[in-house]
Amino acid sequence: MAFYSSGVEYGIHSLMCMVDAKGNEREMSVREMAALQGVPYDYLGKIFTRLSRAGLVISSEGKGGGFKLARGAELITVLDVVQAIDGEKKAFECREVRQRLAVFDESPPAWVCDGPCGVRSVMDNAQQRMEEELARHTILDLARKMYRKAPDTFQVEVQDWISVQRSS
Amino acid sequence: MAFYSSGVEYGIHSLMCMVDAKGNEREMSVREMAALQGVPYDYLGKIFTRLSRAGLVISSEGKGGGFKLARGAELITVLDVVQAIDGEKKAFECREVRQRLAVFDESPPAWVCDGPCGVRSVMDNAQQRMEEELARHTILDLARKMYRKAPDTFQVEVQDWISVQRSS
Repeated sequence: MAFYSSGVEYGIHSLMCMVDAKGNEREMSVREMAALQGVPYDYLGKIFTRLSRAGLVISSEGKGGGFKLARGAELITVLDVVQAIDGEKKAFECREVRQRLAVFDESPPAWVCDGPCGVRSVMDNAQQRMEEELARHTILDLARKMYRKAPDTFQVEVQDWISVQRSS
Repeated sequence: MAFYSSGVEYGIHSLMCMVDAKGNEREMSVREMAALQGVPYDYLGKIFTRLSRAGLVISSEGKGGGFKLARGAELITVLDVVQAIDGEKKAFECREVRQRLAVFDESPPAWVCDGPCGVRSVMDNAQQRMEEELARHTILDLARKMYRKAPDTFQVEVQDWISVQRSS
């Protein structure tokens, strides 16, 4: 099973939808983003509750229950989204195997329990390297990368699609 | 749920048991390692089947069905053990959300499908950073770190415990 949830993936793609081809922010409703990405509205609603609780988006006053980014897309990292949606997950769960060695007869000496287990330290440091990499990329980076690949008509198509949704 | 399985933890600790305080390799049977660490024999047996298949340990000819390291403990990295036991797991499973945008009407254009999704690239690179860190640490490093913390009597206690097991 993957470590990061599907919610993380939809969360990142949704926030990318909230940035246009010029890097400007675009207010969107959960209903629009769900329809645009072909995911159930309730599912995306739960993701936006988490993004909102983490202070990455704020609900806007306009009709239709829209959301806007709570800060510039260049200030929202992939790690921010991961932690908002999946919480502070550990890649490695230390079971303190070191304390259970039969030679200690259920009374591990102080030196054994002192500081984190060496195995855990390695695993925790490795997760930290992964998270540092996630913190190096922002929603703006990802949106720009996508728009650079796309023809100019893409931005027009998306805007037209949104306009049709709003007028219907 | 943690990304790395409990099998990884027991696999690493077991291989550390196969190195003595001087950094020399120590032949051990699965039964001894299971008793030493207080884990079920069958469970650890499955872990050693995987370590063996991955070429990290080889079964020795002696009585009791022992195992020895297939190469020096300084040449077995934490990443080797992780991949032997958990296989090639992905931290992030890309669902190709980009192809499903409603504006493409189920026919995503070529530019969308070209190359890996930008989100996936970030996630895959992050996992690579994590794995690079795991590859920087070996079983010998971990065993040495443990023995450095331990009093000299620890090595004697472990050897005595093994001798008792073998004579009973």
